[in-house]
Amino acid sequence: MIKLIEKTILTNPQILESCFKSWDKLFDKKESGFLESPKRENLWHQSKKRAQEIESFENLCIVGIGGSSLGAQVLQEIFENEKTVTFFDNVDPLSFNKKLQKIQGQKNHWVIISKSGGTLETLAQFQALLAQRKINPPLSEFVTVISELKDNPLTLWAQKYQVPILELPQDIGGRFSVLTPVGLFPAAFMGASLEDLKLGALWALQQKELVCEVAAQSLMSFDRKESITLFWTYSDQLRNFSFWIQQLWAESLAKKKTRSGLEGPFVSTPLPCRGTQDQHSLLQQVVEGQRDKFVLFFRVEQAEKSGPAVFVDPYLGPDFLSNCKMGDVLRAEAEAVQQTLASLGVESLSIKVDNLKEKQVGALFMFMELVVGVMGEALNINTYDQPGVESGKIRAQEILRGMK
Amino acid sequence: MIKLIEKTILTNPQILESCFKSWDKLFDKKESGFLESPKRENLWHQSKKRAQEIESFENLCIVGIGGSSLGAQVLQEIFENEKTVTFFDNVDPLSFNKKLQKIQGQKNHWVIISKSGGTLETLAQFQALLAQRKINPPLSEFVTVISELKDNPLTLWAQKYQVPILELPQDIGGRFSVLTPVGLFPAAFMGASLEDLKLGALWALQQKELVCEVAAQSLMSFDRKESITLFWTYSDQLRNFSFWIQQLWAESLAKKKTRSGLEGPFVSTPLPCRGTQDQHSLLQQVVEGQRDKFVLFFRVEQAEKSGPAVFVDPYLGPDFLSNCKMGDVLRAEAEAVQQTLASLGVESLSIKVDNLKEKQVGALFMFMELVVGVMGEALNINTYDQPGVESGKIRAQEILRGMK
Repeated sequence: MIKLIEKTILTNPQILESCFKSWDKLFDKKESGFLESPKRENLWHQSKKRAQEIESFENLCIVGIGGSSLGAQVLQEIFENEKTVTFFDNVDPLSFNKKLQKIQGQKNHWVIISKSGGTLETLAQFQALLAQRKINPPLSEFVTVISELKDNPLTLWAQKYQVPILELPQDIGGRFSVLTPVGLFPAAFMGASLEDLKLGALWALQQKELVCEVAAQSLMSFDRKESITLFWTYSDQLRNFSFWIQQLWAESLAKKKTRSGLEGPFVSTPLPCRGTQDQHSLLQQVVEGQRDKFVLFFRVEQAEKSGPAVFVDPYLGPDFLSNCKMGDVLRAEAEAVQQTLASLGVESLSIKVDNLKEKQVGALFMFMELVVGVMGEALNINTYDQPGVESGKIRAQEILRGMK
Repeated sequence: MIKLIEKTILTNPQILESCFKSWDKLFDKKESGFLESPKRENLWHQSKKRAQEIESFENLCIVGIGGSSLGAQVLQEIFENEKTVTFFDNVDPLSFNKKLQKIQGQKNHWVIISKSGGTLETLAQFQALLAQRKINPPLSEFVTVISELKDNPLTLWAQKYQVPILELPQDIGGRFSVLTPVGLFPAAFMGASLEDLKLGALWALQQKELVCEVAAQSLMSFDRKESITLFWTYSDQLRNFSFWIQQLWAESLAKKKTRSGLEGPFVSTPLPCRGTQDQHSLLQQVVEGQRDKFVLFFRVEQAEKSGPAVFVDPYLGPDFLSNCKMGDVLRAEAEAVQQTLASLGVESLSIKVDNLKEKQVGALFMFMELVVGVMGEALNINTYDQPGVESGKIRAQEILRGMK
C-alpha cells in the first residue's frame, strides 16, 4: 500500500535499532492515544451517525484552525464531490466575508471544532457568525460541535443549546486527531468510506520496519545538520497533505528541552513542495543553494500510469512525447529530479502509494504520525505539546485587553 | 501605499549603501526589462483588447507552469468574481481530469503560456487537450497564446492556426513577467483595472529608499547565516503572493557561481507562511527550533480595521473579545507574534499595504521584483537565469526517450 521505493543512502544500523526501541516505547505511552483511534468504535460510529443525520445539507462549513482544520482539508482535496466543504481557518475579515458571500443560498451545516473549547480564532469567528445570524435556528439542526468532553466554553455552550457534540478524546492531540471526528465526520459527509480509512490506519500500525526506516533516515539528516526537510508530493491531490505534515513535523519535533531537561535536539524545518510545478520554483534553490536539505518524495502509482494520451502535433513536439501518456511525463520528471539531486549529493527518500483511495489515505495519515511519534521518542522529547506558541497567545490577549 | 512599519534591528549603513549602488546598476542592465514593463504601452493595450474580444466567456483556463502561472494565481485570489480562472499547472492526470470535469458545460477560453514556446509540461497538457478535443473550433476564438515573438513551437503553431499571440518580451524573465500579458490578460478578463495596476508599479519604481532598506535587511540575514526567510502574510488573499515570492526568490538568488566565476553567495530558502493559521503550525518551529530564520511580515491595513463585530456570548467568551472587531484580533495576533519573536532574538521586518486594490497589488509585485533585483546586483550574481533546473530537464527527456 505504501512502499519505500528508493533511498539514496544506506540506513545507519545503530539509528535504525534506536528507532525500533522507540517504536516499542511509543506504544507504552499514554499521551499517544492516536495509536488507539482505529480501535475506538465510538469515534467512528458517532461520526457516521451524525453525517447521516445531516445528509440533506449541501455544504459543510468547518470553523477551526491548525489541527482542527488541516486534516479535513486533505480529505476535501481528495474526496470532495457534489457535497462541498468550506473552511473558516483564519480571522481575516476580508476572506471571512468573501466566503460567506460564496456560500449564500446553499444549505450549510456548521461544525465548530476546538480541542480545548477555547481557541481564540475559532471562538471569534463563531461568535461573529452568531452575531450576524448567519446560522439558522434551531441550532441543534444546523450546528455540530467537536471538542473534548470537559467543562470548556464550547462544550458548555453546546450543552445549553442542545447542540450535538462529537468527542475529541483528551489523549489525542489536535495535530494527531484526523482519525477522530475532526476528520471522520467531514469524510463521512463527503461520502468517503470510514471502514476503508480505518483499514488503512490499521495496516500502517503493522509497518514497524517501514516506519522505523523512514524515521531513521530523517534522523540521519538531522545528524548531517540538514536544516530543511522537503515534503515533495508528485500529486496535486496531496498538496494539502504536505501542509498537514508540515504542522505535524513543526509542532511535534521542534522543542527547546528534552524530557530530561537538556537542550533540545537539532531538527529541521518542514517545507512543502509540489512537483512538477515546483521544479519551476524551488528546484533551482535545492540544486544551487545551500546543501542543507533532505527530500521526501511522495508519489502515486495510479497517477503515473494514467492517461490522457499526449498526442504530438508536428508543430508542437517534442518528438519524445509521441506514445506518451501524461502519467509517463509525471513519472519521468519525478525520477529525473530525484536522480539529479542524488548526483549532486542531496539525499532523498521516495515513497509510493498505489492510489488515493480511502485505504491509502488512512494509511498515509497513520504512517506519518507513527514516523513523527518514533522520531520524538528517539529524540527524547515531548512530541505532543507545543509550549512555543503559548507566549504569543498571552501577548495577543494583553494587546486585546489593552484596547478597552 | 507600501510602508515598512517595523524592523527589529538597525540597518547596517554599509550594506544599505551597497544596495543604493546596486539599484543604480540594476537600472543600467538590459536583462532587467521588467523595469520597463509599465512603460511598454503595447503590452497593456493588447492584453486589454484581447480581454474585450473574449468577454462573452465565463472561465479562463490557463495552461502554464511556474512563472507562466503563479502571478495570475495571485490575481485570481484577489480579483476573481463571476468570471473564474482555472489553472492547468502540472502534468498530474488525476487532477487534470478532475479539472476538466469541473469546467464542463462552462464557456471556456484557453490561454497557453510558455516564454520559450517549448515548455514540456505545458505542451504535454495542451496536446492532451487537443487530442481529446476539449477545445472547440475555431481555435482563433477559443485560444490565446502568450509567448516570445520568435520561431518557437508554440508561436509557429499559433501562426499556422491564426490563433492570436500576445507578446512576452524577450528581455523579461518568466518569474518577472506578471506585468506583461502573462498577468495583465487574466487581470483584464477578471475586470481588474490595468491602469491602476500600472500606477502601482510606477509608484514602486520611485521607492529607492524603501526597496534598498528591505534588500539590505535581507542581505544582513544572509550575513547572519540565517538559512530560511519566512514570508508571513497576515491576509488570506496574499496566500498565492507568498508562493509567487517563493519562486522569485528561490530561482533568482540561489546561484552556484557569481558573475565573476567565484563561489555563489550564501542565500536563504524562502518559506511561505500564513497567519493566524500558521501560528498553529510553523510558529512552534520558529520559537523553539533552530535560530536560523528571518521573517518578513506582510500586513493589510484594511483587513485589520474591518469587521464583523465579535459579539460575546457569556458562555463562550473570552471577555476581552467584547467590543472587538475581527480585524482587531488579526492585528493583535500579528503584533503579538512579531513581538514574541523579537523577544527571542528572531529578527523581522513588517510591511503594510493599505488595502488589496489594483494599485497596491501592482506596487507589491514591482516592489518585490526590485528587492530581489537589487539583492542580485549586490551579490554579483545573474538574477535572471536558472541553470540549476536544466540538468533535470535533460534527464527527464532521456527517461522519456528511453521508453520507446
